[in-house]
Amino acid sequence: MPSSKTVTAAVLLIGNEILSGRTQDANLNHIAKGLTEVGVKMAEARVVPDIEGEIVEAVNALRAKYDYVFTTGGIGPTHDDITAGCIAKAFGVPLHRHPEAVKLLEAAYEPGKLNEARLKMAETPVGADLVKNAVSAAPGFRMENVYVMAGVPAIMRAMFDEVKHTLTGGPPVISRTVATGLPEGTIAEGLGAVQDAYADIDIGSYPFFRQGGFGVHVVLRGSDAARLDGAVAAVIDLLVGLGGDGIEDS
Amino acid sequence: MPSSKTVTAAVLLIGNEILSGRTQDANLNHIAKGLTEVGVKMAEARVVPDIEGEIVEAVNALRAKYDYVFTTGGIGPTHDDITAGCIAKAFGVPLHRHPEAVKLLEAAYEPGKLNEARLKMAETPVGADLVKNAVSAAPGFRMENVYVMAGVPAIMRAMFDEVKHTLTGGPPVISRTVATGLPEGTIAEGLGAVQDAYADIDIGSYPFFRQGGFGVHVVLRGSDAARLDGAVAAVIDLLVGLGGDGIEDS
Repeated sequence: MPSSKTVTAAVLLIGNEILSGRTQDANLNHIAKGLTEVGVKMAEARVVPDIEGEIVEAVNALRAKYDYVFTTGGIGPTHDDITAGCIAKAFGVPLHRHPEAVKLLEAAYEPGKLNEARLKMAETPVGADLVKNAVSAAPGFRMENVYVMAGVPAIMRAMFDEVKHTLTGGPPVISRTVATGLPEGTIAEGLGAVQDAYADIDIGSYPFFRQGGFGVHVVLRGSDAARLDGAVAAVIDLLVGLGGDGIEDS
Repeated sequence: MPSSKTVTAAVLLIGNEILSGRTQDANLNHIAKGLTEVGVKMAEARVVPDIEGEIVEAVNALRAKYDYVFTTGGIGPTHDDITAGCIAKAFGVPLHRHPEAVKLLEAAYEPGKLNEARLKMAETPVGADLVKNAVSAAPGFRMENVYVMAGVPAIMRAMFDEVKHTLTGGPPVISRTVATGLPEGTIAEGLGAVQDAYADIDIGSYPFFRQGGFGVHVVLRGSDAARLDGAVAAVIDLLVGLGGDGIEDS
């Protein structure tokens, strides 16, 4: 059942490779879209390196401030995979080999192949529940309001899709977009007046450059469909009144 | 002249559209690569919404902790462009219309077109220097160690390329990559031993899935070329000793 109040989340991307520019993150946008679908508002995201103190500090700041936290990265078998230990430290509990995770790994590897490094992937903070997935035997886990997922996009998506529908979302947010060829500087004053008149609708203005010219997408987001109708109509009236086009993207 | 110590930076992406999933960020990776080129280590990144308190808090946290901060987004003419005011608030100084920025805008618009909304793009905190760019008349600005840039990628890149070579970097970091078809779980123990032997080299392990199979990229980063040579050789020896391939990506 949806919550009547806004439900918030933060995402914590863990990994030197994103900060060095070696890897272009592909997870944030997927999680953002998925959270929006289920009525959870992503309120902040951070990228931190593979350094214990930084991860622990970020996890504790975010889990205190938001309803949900999703981490990606650092749960593999190698020395630079330190996320599980950091989550345990953030919660002040020990790590253990989660019995169910050990069983999952035992089933996935041939006898003799499940070495100590691979067994590290069965480690979770004491008190965590597993987040299984269809792509990899190694599970993610949930510790209270913190969901710990893989960094490899195919595995992260399988894990996130597993948990997405278990989240308690707030009122679904509807998004509508009006496109215009008028420049931002021409519509800014009137758009500000529409925003003032519709304080419950979040109105954003996003200039774009495309083949054939430039323009602006006005994006309107809110939970009340009738109020959104009113705000969209007011934006279109404004744009047409300024001698431009204002066409809702379907 | 490069600094002898590590020089750090943080990036702050400002914008509801990234958090809602409407927009896939294209700026972080560009900045990350550019900073790496000039010997500056990106140590953290954050994404925050268009909310004054959140922006001010993040700017103050990051500018105190790192040598440089780069922000993107929120410097246009519309009501949701609040970055300049937030930076002023973070530094405890007033906003003003920067005289040189006003001149740039006056030169760019036909008489009568430079309205109040567009003049907002000339506002900077008192004490800021402009960051001009070849794509847009509206400038970014620098306030002490904080660089404020546009969110539209083409404009952000023009601004960043303008400032990149003015930064004082630390010792250049060299990155080398060894690819193998061996799985992470097989190489993990030995790779940890190489990392222990080369504590000054940052060794990361990144599994990949591609057409034709999967494998691991071992990425080694450091400032001392001879030590890197040693670590790369140790990784290749390890991989070959485990019966696999270990080929340096050129």
